[in-house]
Amino acid sequence: MRSSVVRDMFAVTSDPRTISFAGGHPGPEAFPVDELRSITDAIISKYGPAVFQYGSTEGHAPLRRNISALMQETYGLLHDPEDILVTSGSQQALYLLCRVFLNPGDLVITENPTYLGALNIFRSFLADIRTVEQDEEGMNISALEECLAELASGGQKPRFIYAIPSIHNPTGVTMSAERRSGLYDVADRYDIPVIEDDPYGMIRYDGLAVEPLKKLDARGRVIYVGSFSKTVSPGLRTGWIAAQSDIIRKCTIAKQGDDACSVTMAQFIISDFIESGAIYRQIERVKEMYREKRDIMAEALREMIPRASFNIPGGGLFLWVALPEELNAMDLLKKCLERHVAFVPGCNFYTDHGGANMLRLNFSFPSRDRIHEGLVRMAEIVEAELARSGVLN
Amino acid sequence: MRSSVVRDMFAVTSDPRTISFAGGHPGPEAFPVDELRSITDAIISKYGPAVFQYGSTEGHAPLRRNISALMQETYGLLHDPEDILVTSGSQQALYLLCRVFLNPGDLVITENPTYLGALNIFRSFLADIRTVEQDEEGMNISALEECLAELASGGQKPRFIYAIPSIHNPTGVTMSAERRSGLYDVADRYDIPVIEDDPYGMIRYDGLAVEPLKKLDARGRVIYVGSFSKTVSPGLRTGWIAAQSDIIRKCTIAKQGDDACSVTMAQFIISDFIESGAIYRQIERVKEMYREKRDIMAEALREMIPRASFNIPGGGLFLWVALPEELNAMDLLKKCLERHVAFVPGCNFYTDHGGANMLRLNFSFPSRDRIHEGLVRMAEIVEAELARSGVLN
Repeated sequence: MRSSVVRDMFAVTSDPRTISFAGGHPGPEAFPVDELRSITDAIISKYGPAVFQYGSTEGHAPLRRNISALMQETYGLLHDPEDILVTSGSQQALYLLCRVFLNPGDLVITENPTYLGALNIFRSFLADIRTVEQDEEGMNISALEECLAELASGGQKPRFIYAIPSIHNPTGVTMSAERRSGLYDVADRYDIPVIEDDPYGMIRYDGLAVEPLKKLDARGRVIYVGSFSKTVSPGLRTGWIAAQSDIIRKCTIAKQGDDACSVTMAQFIISDFIESGAIYRQIERVKEMYREKRDIMAEALREMIPRASFNIPGGGLFLWVALPEELNAMDLLKKCLERHVAFVPGCNFYTDHGGANMLRLNFSFPSRDRIHEGLVRMAEIVEAELARSGVLN
Repeated sequence: MRSSVVRDMFAVTSDPRTISFAGGHPGPEAFPVDELRSITDAIISKYGPAVFQYGSTEGHAPLRRNISALMQETYGLLHDPEDILVTSGSQQALYLLCRVFLNPGDLVITENPTYLGALNIFRSFLADIRTVEQDEEGMNISALEECLAELASGGQKPRFIYAIPSIHNPTGVTMSAERRSGLYDVADRYDIPVIEDDPYGMIRYDGLAVEPLKKLDARGRVIYVGSFSKTVSPGLRTGWIAAQSDIIRKCTIAKQGDDACSVTMAQFIISDFIESGAIYRQIERVKEMYREKRDIMAEALREMIPRASFNIPGGGLFLWVALPEELNAMDLLKKCLERHVAFVPGCNFYTDHGGANMLRLNFSFPSRDRIHEGLVRMAEIVEAELARSGVLN
């Protein structure tokens, strides 16, 4: 097992002087503190001891019903609450799925680049990770099909395909409808489950909501993983898996051994936050806040580091930035940390040697002023590096 | 992986008609609901967004300091807060330790019988579980030594010894001081870590506090696992590992992959509950409540099922009961569930075919009236079974 770069960065970013573009933290101003405080007080008053007792491994029954209602309301997705497992964050959801699906050496397919937290879990299970390239419409489906055909010709079959179809981490890309149905068809034809990781799907800033892959799922191939970390609170560690009964049953057994059940109080809080409708207002609030921060960062970046190139993501918490190829983001990070600025070098999202000049910048956590100040410092370092590497000569 | 019998029982016990002696649930009257409510409100007022943000994987720093202080105050045990990992219940603590220590087929030594939750985790890691018998003073140290010598002669070495020295689950036995030092010496001589699982050590009803094995630990062999589930709230899912730095570091990496961090709010609450001194009052309250329930159950059992034999445990939540050998506790359970009474048949705590006539009865959860009513029903069934088996003829 190796320590995740993102989490190691927590140590650096815990220094209050550090301006962190590194993690995936919500902005402190985004938490609905007063609402959560009154909900918490109300549920303790109303349910008393039940809020502090063990809960079932599957999760608090009203929360499972409310998650089902949320998926229906947001995506028009009908899913039986019985086939939902509440998890301790979507991190645990991915972990449990690996525990259920993977033996050492088993094949897993992911987009390249992809969420480094997922890569770290797959690696810790000693998975053999194969990757499929993506472009601005998402995963390259012909490449996926080629990959699967080649594996099949060698008698090999991946245990699952891991994908982030909506507002990909780190690229920000949302897979087109055509690619989604292509992905589903190929997975169906090759009889391979797809894990759809969807922490950002509900916080889309521009354009219409995109339907999750799960909505195409006539034959129960898609394992949907959701999270309240980016919409409500990551500290409440509440995520979920929506999948076929047999998968939910196996993940539940795995969860029994892992942490027995998730925190009862957190589940009561989130359940009430959905049921009262507060979550829909909160999602709108978060969208507005982060859209603005995204635009502030994009504008400052264009102005201060004009040689950086990037697309504007339609949602999520990150800009995915390419620097001139002469620059190495790991070297840059070292220098930036000396000036108390942190980010995640792009190479960490790749399984191969890709992404050396890429970096992922988070805009949800830092304040507007700190976004500006952090980019001022980065720009100075980038300029110096460019001069040193001869690009500016 | 197999589903734990205790947790499967949750389904049956969720029927409000069922009188459950099965789980390890605190009594609903034991939760300090009002205190927890004001603490929760106060911490949200005081710390605001921080209560809802991601925390570090190691755990909330003030909580780690307060756990260290609690161990010192209760046991005179000095342990660096830096070498404490906060876990999502002691279930996760055991799980992470297995993730760090075990490969499939690795040897593990436990007492026989032992906590079935631990056995289930060890089995899920495909461990080769070897057991050592115990008597009223705890683990038989000569038997342990014989077992280790035999393994060593075959070039084998267990990865760890798992023990519950204080108020054993299910037997209720507290290991004598002599046996503790024997266990430590043998483990030290054979260079094997000992996992000391201690969920009940702080809630001892009779006699003096017993020092944990960890206190003998001059050479860093003992991995102490603690829990707030039985003292404060199992729904807050807060436990800890206190061990050598290298083990804490490895468990922290394992936790990063598993659930990233434990619930921030729960950690703030428990931290404040210790720091304010409320935990010491709460432990006294719980002791008094459960001592009384223990005595009610013991008396009713003596009166109603006089052929049952058992010792009075000095703490913990269970009576460990032997029925006449003609009776089989699994058969009895089936009949009891029809009458809406649940318990855990003793065989589930054994790795061999032991304990067929044993049962574990929880007295912390049911009310006094229900303890009485449940035993009335059980007594009728036991009588009928004894008559059927010819014991009463």
